[in-house]
Amino acid sequence: MVDVGVFGASGYTGQALLDILLFHPGVKVTLVTSSTYKGKRIEEVFPKLAGVSSLTFEEPAPLSQADRAELFFLCLPHKEAMAVAPTLLEKGKKVIDLSADFRLKDAEVYEKWYGATHSAPEYLDMAVYGLPELYSEQIAHADLIAAPGCYPTSTILGLAPVIGLDWINRKSVVINSVSGVSGAGKKLEPQYMLAELEGNFHAYGAPKHRHTPEIEQELSRLAGESVTVTFIPHLLPVTRGIYTTITADLARPVTAEEAVGLYTTFYSGKPFVRVIPSFPQMKWVVERNACVIGVTVDERAGRIIITSTIDNLVKGASGQAVQCFNLRLGLSQTTGLK
Amino acid sequence: MVDVGVFGASGYTGQALLDILLFHPGVKVTLVTSSTYKGKRIEEVFPKLAGVSSLTFEEPAPLSQADRAELFFLCLPHKEAMAVAPTLLEKGKKVIDLSADFRLKDAEVYEKWYGATHSAPEYLDMAVYGLPELYSEQIAHADLIAAPGCYPTSTILGLAPVIGLDWINRKSVVINSVSGVSGAGKKLEPQYMLAELEGNFHAYGAPKHRHTPEIEQELSRLAGESVTVTFIPHLLPVTRGIYTTITADLARPVTAEEAVGLYTTFYSGKPFVRVIPSFPQMKWVVERNACVIGVTVDERAGRIIITSTIDNLVKGASGQAVQCFNLRLGLSQTTGLK
Amino acid sequence: MVDVGVFGASGYTGQALLDILLFHPGVKVTLVTSSTYKGKRIEEVFPKLAGVSSLTFEEPAPLSQADRAELFFLCLPHKEAMAVAPTLLEKGKKVIDLSADFRLKDAEVYEKWYGATHSAPEYLDMAVYGLPELYSEQIAHADLIAAPGCYPTSTILGLAPVIGLDWINRKSVVINSVSGVSGAGKKLEPQYMLAELEGNFHAYGAPKHRHTPEIEQELSRLAGESVTVTFIPHLLPVTRGIYTTITADLARPVTAEEAVGLYTTFYSGKPFVRVIPSFPQMKWVVERNACVIGVTVDERAGRIIITSTIDNLVKGASGQAVQCFNLRLGLSQTTGLK
Amino acid sequence: MVDVGVFGASGYTGQALLDILLFHPGVKVTLVTSSTYKGKRIEEVFPKLAGVSSLTFEEPAPLSQADRAELFFLCLPHKEAMAVAPTLLEKGKKVIDLSADFRLKDAEVYEKWYGATHSAPEYLDMAVYGLPELYSEQIAHADLIAAPGCYPTSTILGLAPVIGLDWINRKSVVINSVSGVSGAGKKLEPQYMLAELEGNFHAYGAPKHRHTPEIEQELSRLAGESVTVTFIPHLLPVTRGIYTTITADLARPVTAEEAVGLYTTFYSGKPFVRVIPSFPQMKWVVERNACVIGVTVDERAGRIIITSTIDNLVKGASGQAVQCFNLRLGLSQTTGLK
Repeated sequence: MVDVGVFGASGYTGQALLDILLFHPGVKVTLVTSSTYKGKRIEEVFPKLAGVSSLTFEEPAPLSQADRAELFFLCLPHKEAMAVAPTLLEKGKKVIDLSADFRLKDAEVYEKWYGATHSAPEYLDMAVYGLPELYSEQIAHADLIAAPGCYPTSTILGLAPVIGLDWINRKSVVINSVSGVSGAGKKLEPQYMLAELEGNFHAYGAPKHRHTPEIEQELSRLAGESVTVTFIPHLLPVTRGIYTTITADLARPVTAEEAVGLYTTFYSGKPFVRVIPSFPQMKWVVERNACVIGVTVDERAGRIIITSTIDNLVKGASGQAVQCFNLRLGLSQTTGLK
Repeated sequence: MVDVGVFGASGYTGQALLDILLFHPGVKVTLVTSSTYKGKRIEEVFPKLAGVSSLTFEEPAPLSQADRAELFFLCLPHKEAMAVAPTLLEKGKKVIDLSADFRLKDAEVYEKWYGATHSAPEYLDMAVYGLPELYSEQIAHADLIAAPGCYPTSTILGLAPVIGLDWINRKSVVINSVSGVSGAGKKLEPQYMLAELEGNFHAYGAPKHRHTPEIEQELSRLAGESVTVTFIPHLLPVTRGIYTTITADLARPVTAEEAVGLYTTFYSGKPFVRVIPSFPQMKWVVERNACVIGVTVDERAGRIIITSTIDNLVKGASGQAVQCFNLRLGLSQTTGLK
Repeated sequence: MVDVGVFGASGYTGQALLDILLFHPGVKVTLVTSSTYKGKRIEEVFPKLAGVSSLTFEEPAPLSQADRAELFFLCLPHKEAMAVAPTLLEKGKKVIDLSADFRLKDAEVYEKWYGATHSAPEYLDMAVYGLPELYSEQIAHADLIAAPGCYPTSTILGLAPVIGLDWINRKSVVINSVSGVSGAGKKLEPQYMLAELEGNFHAYGAPKHRHTPEIEQELSRLAGESVTVTFIPHLLPVTRGIYTTITADLARPVTAEEAVGLYTTFYSGKPFVRVIPSFPQMKWVVERNACVIGVTVDERAGRIIITSTIDNLVKGASGQAVQCFNLRLGLSQTTGLK
Repeated sequence: MVDVGVFGASGYTGQALLDILLFHPGVKVTLVTSSTYKGKRIEEVFPKLAGVSSLTFEEPAPLSQADRAELFFLCLPHKEAMAVAPTLLEKGKKVIDLSADFRLKDAEVYEKWYGATHSAPEYLDMAVYGLPELYSEQIAHADLIAAPGCYPTSTILGLAPVIGLDWINRKSVVINSVSGVSGAGKKLEPQYMLAELEGNFHAYGAPKHRHTPEIEQELSRLAGESVTVTFIPHLLPVTRGIYTTITADLARPVTAEEAVGLYTTFYSGKPFVRVIPSFPQMKWVVERNACVIGVTVDERAGRIIITSTIDNLVKGASGQAVQCFNLRLGLSQTTGLK
């Protein structure tokens, strides 16, 4: 039983995290913070958790709260996370950060895409990118884990088996992704109102969405050379889920069977990733810590088509963070995760 | 006032067509057929049209019904349309066919993609592809008009200004498209049940969706050379609307301003197409005979991003068919269309 | 052609009103105001209206703007409408107010339910309740028309034929109503976010919803005695539509046929109300100025069950206001309305 | 670890049951049957359960399959369940039936409302109505448990504390209920297609919905006298959830506090029922074995307003069946249930 604290626990990611942690057999949640809801009990803010916990949200105060747990999850917005993490780390605590603040290795890239100075660049080197399918070893020993973004998780898992091979033309990667609205967090903006979204669909943010450099950083690392992609996110009129459709030109003829075989081998032994030779459906993964990847080849056009789907709040955020937690604590990866 | 008949008027396309024709100032609907609902009044099948018309659906019988109107719309499934059109044409009637049967110029291509022998190949030459933004002259004199498919309409309008230029690499065209479920017609299949679709999203049919050869035929015609594309359709959990996101590699540096300018000039004077320098939203066009095209450039990756949205039942089917009707009858294109 | 102005034209009701007025053959819209969007063109705020009007939203200033039109629609929130209407009326203009400010005849009742002092109680007497199916004569001569609320419209039309008869026990009326979220106006509140509403449903506001006294005032007027009801509104996870299910104890045995006959006779000649002997569906009336009423009898329990459905933004607001406008201007009730 | 079989495991109720049983610490599922999907593995039919079970659906054959488990859940349609249960009972097995076949005590009532002869009336006496909040003692010793319907669960829990008291007028009970579409089972009917349901809402089935006699039977048992109610179900355009709004005339003045107090006391110690003094929301209980009841008083009209919400597939079906299972097996009621 490990004492665990959650900063910023009242947003969608925080709620999804509590949904897992409060039922996790190896966890005792000892602290939940929320500036907005301080003083309220968990069940007042999340009626679905009625009867599960008697904790009350507290104003965040990392310096004095660092003693309350051994490990902290940060579900804070970017810029706030980098203000809190150093305090906890200096007190010898482990931190799993779900924000964007420690994902990019290069503070200048961060500053360019996020339009903000990085206040703790000295921690970027020690931060481990929390994608367990690629970095389980490093996660198992990290004190600062930067859980990936939701779009990057679906994209990187979709491309990891192939991006380093000579099968594809790495300059030709096009990523079309759709996301449910919870991906934007609990923001009170007109575009997230039901009356705006019902029956609606649209692209947004391209070609400068902030998840682009994170995707490129990881693909470049896997490829061993700089990779530039076109990433086009779209808003879907549902609450949860990400569905990513990736195309890349084949550098040589590849059959669908070969491609599926490659992916299947790559993800063999990874409990949360499944490969299929057709197209997954988004609802298969909702409320699950799972990624299903469909592998198809367009032989006429000479292109591979990869579809990858996750729940943005689970495998794209809180579930993945708990998967990292399990690895870090030496538990089975699947503990407490469906 | 022209007497007009509608074969297959009880499906989604038929309903959308009646929604327009029954309020069109130049039209008198004299015949509606439906095998499923024969004997029922329009308002029994479509309560939303209560009080608008006293017509009753009849069993289709083209030979004897040909005298009932001057022009017929066919909202029949493919294979059924090509059995009906010749009879009407031989009686000297005009036909606007909303099925796939007369869209492809090559009967062999039809047979390959639709898995059926074409029973009226001698009519393929005379059929005019009913996309008014490209073929208004021919439509104005055609006796057989093949109204385009919904995916092709959004895609071809999205690529027409640029596909024939040396700006782009024509081998690099990737089309990701999403459609509401009415695009599939009124089929009783489990995948179209609300319980399957709520909160769901998925790709399907790629790379062999039947709209692919129609898209390639028209792009090739515009380009003056054979064009092969990757076309990936997705099912959206809404009833109406298509949103198409197209990428193509730029063959030389092009700014967003240049690209927007090109599109704006191309569609100048076309009342139903609007070009914007950002991303359109699908709900802007629902229940409208409209296409909004967003033009953007990803300068980092050297790619153009085109987004194009229509209502699949209106600009993607019935509205466009009425637009063709207006041209054929010498009326203003916009008569009876919002 | 009448010059018409719209105050508060940028909300949902304003949009629905412009959707009608800009296509109305007897109307020229000369003024649209909006504090929020002043300086923006209509199509910037409502892209669906692109190409239809070149008007620009202006800051509301009734004193100087009164000359701009002959008749004004007020789509302002309550309390704001009663500040604007007197200025326009004093300048000899006609006013159709869509807010709650002039619906209640008794300023004290207003003050009790709305928690605000009425600033123009001297106009309450001259205001005509704009429900054309009951008050067409008075509407035809009124200078101040108070268009009914959405819940009251569906409820009063549902009870009007029977509330004054000895068929039912007037103390037993229970009204369960559900509404799409646009009924709440364009408010940025968490409860109207898609992420809160998807898959959700709940009652709210009972037994003190502000539409209760309006319902009771009109039912009492029809009954010739004071009527008290239980009114329970519920929030439906859709944008548009109201569905009201009303029960009342029968004072004597009545067959379904008798009841349907009574309603059919009552609404004979009313073009926007339709009576059916079963249950209407909400989508039959969406985007239509229509009310469909289902009349059923529970013989075992001795109760009448009335279901009544409208589009809250059309027959429950803007469409009804235009219906009043048509009556006031001596046009056919149905002009410009579907 | 108890061996458990599930007949009819491929519908919505079967899926919801497997979702619980396959993760239940005291259960080993040894048999799943499905005429439709026989020969398919669970994960082929329910991709969300991929990796959880290697079972294959079998053609139902109760005589030969009775040995495969100690207890059987029947998720069969009515009429099919009463053909299977006797075989299993005669072999000494325990049966928890989720159909309507053993809920009504009177075979004549069954035959009147279900339009079918009851083929096993001799088992009606031994069947225990599986509502644990009322009959936990009997359930703990029953061999045949008839799990309640979804509408009756929400209604009976909503009325149980008060129906036997002199607080209310028992003749005045009106029940308005809304249900997600999964309540109708996995039927391929046009009315359950997304294109019909999107943005729609309507009443249906009243006053002769088949859950009416079940509600009346149980209310009468609790009241000690015959109770007749008006029950009006409505279809909600969501997949899961029931929300029931009940009104009854107060026989004497009762404050909201008194009413809430009564309910709170009544449900004290019941882990799955929660009472609140306002209105619950449907999404609080989705995918939970929970019922939240809101208790309110309309003092002006002299009526109590009770709102009660459950997930129709969990507390209204499969979760409740597992709750009965736990009681029958002597486990804690909450084992394996969230």
